[in-house]
Amino acid sequence: METLQKYPKAFIFDVFGTIVDWRNGVANVSQRFFEAKKIDQDPHTFADAWRAKYQPAMEKIRSGNRVYFPLDILHRENLDELLNELNLSKSFSETEKQELNRAWEQLSPWQDCTEGLTAIKERAIIAPCSNGSIALMTRLAKFGGLPWDCIVGAEVAQNYKPHPDAYLKSVSALGLQPNEVVMVAAHNSDLVAARRCGLLTAFIARPTEYGSKQAIDITPSEDWDFEISEIGELARL
Amino acid sequence: METLQKYPKAFIFDVFGTIVDWRNGVANVSQRFFEAKKIDQDPHTFADAWRAKYQPAMEKIRSGNRVYFPLDILHRENLDELLNELNLSKSFSETEKQELNRAWEQLSPWQDCTEGLTAIKERAIIAPCSNGSIALMTRLAKFGGLPWDCIVGAEVAQNYKPHPDAYLKSVSALGLQPNEVVMVAAHNSDLVAARRCGLLTAFIARPTEYGSKQAIDITPSEDWDFEISEIGELARL
Repeated sequence: METLQKYPKAFIFDVFGTIVDWRNGVANVSQRFFEAKKIDQDPHTFADAWRAKYQPAMEKIRSGNRVYFPLDILHRENLDELLNELNLSKSFSETEKQELNRAWEQLSPWQDCTEGLTAIKERAIIAPCSNGSIALMTRLAKFGGLPWDCIVGAEVAQNYKPHPDAYLKSVSALGLQPNEVVMVAAHNSDLVAARRCGLLTAFIARPTEYGSKQAIDITPSEDWDFEISEIGELARL
Repeated sequence: METLQKYPKAFIFDVFGTIVDWRNGVANVSQRFFEAKKIDQDPHTFADAWRAKYQPAMEKIRSGNRVYFPLDILHRENLDELLNELNLSKSFSETEKQELNRAWEQLSPWQDCTEGLTAIKERAIIAPCSNGSIALMTRLAKFGGLPWDCIVGAEVAQNYKPHPDAYLKSVSALGLQPNEVVMVAAHNSDLVAARRCGLLTAFIARPTEYGSKQAIDITPSEDWDFEISEIGELARL
């Protein structure tokens, strides 16, 4: 782990997986909907299938084949697609689908996050650098008590990670240089992209993000600047 | 004052004048620079002259004659212009000018703000909808302990108030409709523009924003939805 000359001016965080447990959160909300309708559908399989449509949807925008739309819209399009595939589209009203899409606003943070972020906030700017929209990040923060100073990421950059714009425009919106900012993520690919943009990098393993059989992102794939086992360690560099 | 059917989903706030005392804040920081250099310059006159260049600088962008630049850049251009006019340009190094420009990051909130915002935050989203950048709003919040949920305003909209984009794109970034959001300001002109965009409006007088001889914005110019004497009243509608 790097010895710091100067404490970083900002820490920016991946959110889905790194800060919040999206899989259990989406499954919990979905389960309530399935139970109310007496639909026999495993909610974790549903959450995984919904999430599987995430990268392809963003790729159309990253590749320039579609203008930027916030993630809430992509989540909703993906939900409609998935419900069609499962022959469940007619089981839910439009209002119910809107409510189900808000599952992504009701994701609990991993247990170390709120206290850890609060400690870092005493020393530096903390902000999500997520593919989630400002609206979504705001509601997630209120749901889980995440004390962000501000919100950067995809909406501010008008492009999705791991496109370089998502990192560089976020750093610029903070009024900082890349080497003054640490990107914190549970995903090696996110850190690869951030390092290419000149940011410092911190890896935290979240070995059950994808369930008990998770095979990726268990260990760091490179010699990241920091390797931590809980968020609060970043306050004590 | 309107009787509410439903508590608003978000309150968005003008910041310079409404939440923070820019005039004394800029004067205080400037005074330290003048004293260090033994320059005989009244700091409040200096703050007023700097602020006088604010609207014309933004107007170039609002009118479409210039692409969007964050306010930090405009403040710096205006500072350079002002120092030239006062024959003070050579009195400060480039680093000192950068530091002086950060006067805008060191503005104290009026005494009712931090507690009032904290109370509203229990019930709704609170965010600045200022012409200040994300970087500037973030630093002001840290300086004054302002507990924003997120930051919207000029940078998110890529245009300056009172252009309608600044309100409508801010509301949209919150995932809301204009009639679910209250714009709070000490400036009647800000509320005129917000009301035209369909937002609810709240007026708070800040009768010493421009100093002891202030003649404008002492009273509401229209029948705004809410008239308050301290920010916390909005938590008790």
